[in-house]
Amino acid sequence: MDKEYDVIIIGGGPTGMAAGLYASRGRRKTLLMEKAVTGGQIATTSLVENYPGFPEGVDGYELGQMMEEQAKKYGTEVIEAEATALEFDGRYRIVKTTEGDVRAPVVIVTTGAEHRKLGVEGEARLTGYGVSYCATCDGAFFKDQVVAVIGGGDAALDEGLFLTRYASKVVVIHRRDQLRASMILQERAFATPNMEFIWYTVVEEIIGDKKVNSIRLKNVNTEQESILEVAGVFIYVGLVPNTAFLKGIVAIDNAGHAPVNLWMETKVPGLYVAGDARADAARQVVSAAGDGATAAIAADRYLNELQEELRREEVSVANRS
Amino acid sequence: MDKEYDVIIIGGGPTGMAAGLYASRGRRKTLLMEKAVTGGQIATTSLVENYPGFPEGVDGYELGQMMEEQAKKYGTEVIEAEATALEFDGRYRIVKTTEGDVRAPVVIVTTGAEHRKLGVEGEARLTGYGVSYCATCDGAFFKDQVVAVIGGGDAALDEGLFLTRYASKVVVIHRRDQLRASMILQERAFATPNMEFIWYTVVEEIIGDKKVNSIRLKNVNTEQESILEVAGVFIYVGLVPNTAFLKGIVAIDNAGHAPVNLWMETKVPGLYVAGDARADAARQVVSAAGDGATAAIAADRYLNELQEELRREEVSVANRS
Repeated sequence: MDKEYDVIIIGGGPTGMAAGLYASRGRRKTLLMEKAVTGGQIATTSLVENYPGFPEGVDGYELGQMMEEQAKKYGTEVIEAEATALEFDGRYRIVKTTEGDVRAPVVIVTTGAEHRKLGVEGEARLTGYGVSYCATCDGAFFKDQVVAVIGGGDAALDEGLFLTRYASKVVVIHRRDQLRASMILQERAFATPNMEFIWYTVVEEIIGDKKVNSIRLKNVNTEQESILEVAGVFIYVGLVPNTAFLKGIVAIDNAGHAPVNLWMETKVPGLYVAGDARADAARQVVSAAGDGATAAIAADRYLNELQEELRREEVSVANRS
Repeated sequence: MDKEYDVIIIGGGPTGMAAGLYASRGRRKTLLMEKAVTGGQIATTSLVENYPGFPEGVDGYELGQMMEEQAKKYGTEVIEAEATALEFDGRYRIVKTTEGDVRAPVVIVTTGAEHRKLGVEGEARLTGYGVSYCATCDGAFFKDQVVAVIGGGDAALDEGLFLTRYASKVVVIHRRDQLRASMILQERAFATPNMEFIWYTVVEEIIGDKKVNSIRLKNVNTEQESILEVAGVFIYVGLVPNTAFLKGIVAIDNAGHAPVNLWMETKVPGLYVAGDARADAARQVVSAAGDGATAAIAADRYLNELQEELRREEVSVANRS
């Protein structure tokens, strides 16, 4: 890692890799930092069926690796580091990281969002093997099988209703007897024959050897435990966009997302937020990657304008002397 | 082709294919119509290097075919037809086509844009073999070679300047002695050492057997002809979004694009415009495909709401009787 770049990308999922590909193909000196495993959310998805161009589907981890290879091929430097703060110095944005400070006129934030975890036994181990956080991605794998949905908000019902198109039965498990989801979604859910509800109940354990076969439940009132046989567990207990370090720098909505325009521009010149960290994202691999490309193209135009300004300032100084 | 669908997609490029993939994976009855060759602009691109997931690049025609196969796999019906008009009938949008009328609550317009052609000999035959309309896509193929850029607007200079990063020399050929491009781009172009200009000149022919080797030029004042040796010809004499049939239905800006929000929604419920036909598009394969997925997800939500409304109307009618 050098001290200075044209473009710094924070986050190594599809959005970041696409931004890196475009920025480095545009001959910009580009750094991409990722705090954990490159590939983002798809790194834990066994088969991505909905990324256009792969009719037979593609292994999520492999797709992430190919995207990384492609970005690196054109010059994107990929390092393991976590961004901890963002500061300003004139036309430069300074990114404080766990590996030291680095600066550039352009920062593209592609940190994505993390699904809040249940934190129970089996959850991490069986993710991608029956445990999922994305019905659109994985719903089709559970045709005519029973699946559980954990949560009571909009996401739980929305994705749960999507699952009823495939699954023989969708069992929604919620810790209270009232849903947080909007009325229209609740009405729709209660009118759907193959959707059932278990109230006042939490998941204690996700059980299965190589894939999920059941979950252990506990009633929070009676403390009574039970086992429910399911082939899949879809967990929607909240999303956590990784935007904490942006607070006070750009607007962040109640859910933690940064609003942007169609070019992924924030109100701060040179600062872009793309992918799942932005507001109104479709949260799909291809839309995330499209966001990254869009941000890099907007950033390239911004860098051209900066260079032009610098050139004119130089001419102006030369004329005065 | 049936008479009625859930989702009708007009245009068979990456945007339309991604929309079809998502709509049909969402179990919506989906029709996609394309007036010519599926694949859109990439169908004529020999190597797509900037679609994330293909580190070695991918043949443009093949990529289009794979996207089509994937959309069809989940149920998208693809037909050859041209949309000629759009009409309304309550909650239905009726698409008049060269193959008859068809209707659906949702229409996603993914008709893209066409680069205006010069209409000279060699242009069509050598497209993809030295003739290009996209510097971002093809610029890297012309490292240390001489290329010509045809046109005098923003696109010509913007893409021409991009080409100076690869080409040894970029020769801009313009029919007048004044550029239409914005001053900032003109200043930048004139300050770039490896960018030259030939004024009052038009292209008469693009010459080459299997790939471009030269162009025949004519001075419009003197009528004198000359030959310029070039490896590439980038043509920017205007873009024509295929949105004529939308006039009077949604807002269309001066350049012919339809403004949309981050969900690809127009002001007309159930009518989406995605990809190069919309305003502020990044005009890349991945951003176009991302647009298509986004529109299909927004459309799915819209269809859910429509179904809910219908269900409530039925309940209301039943209660009254």
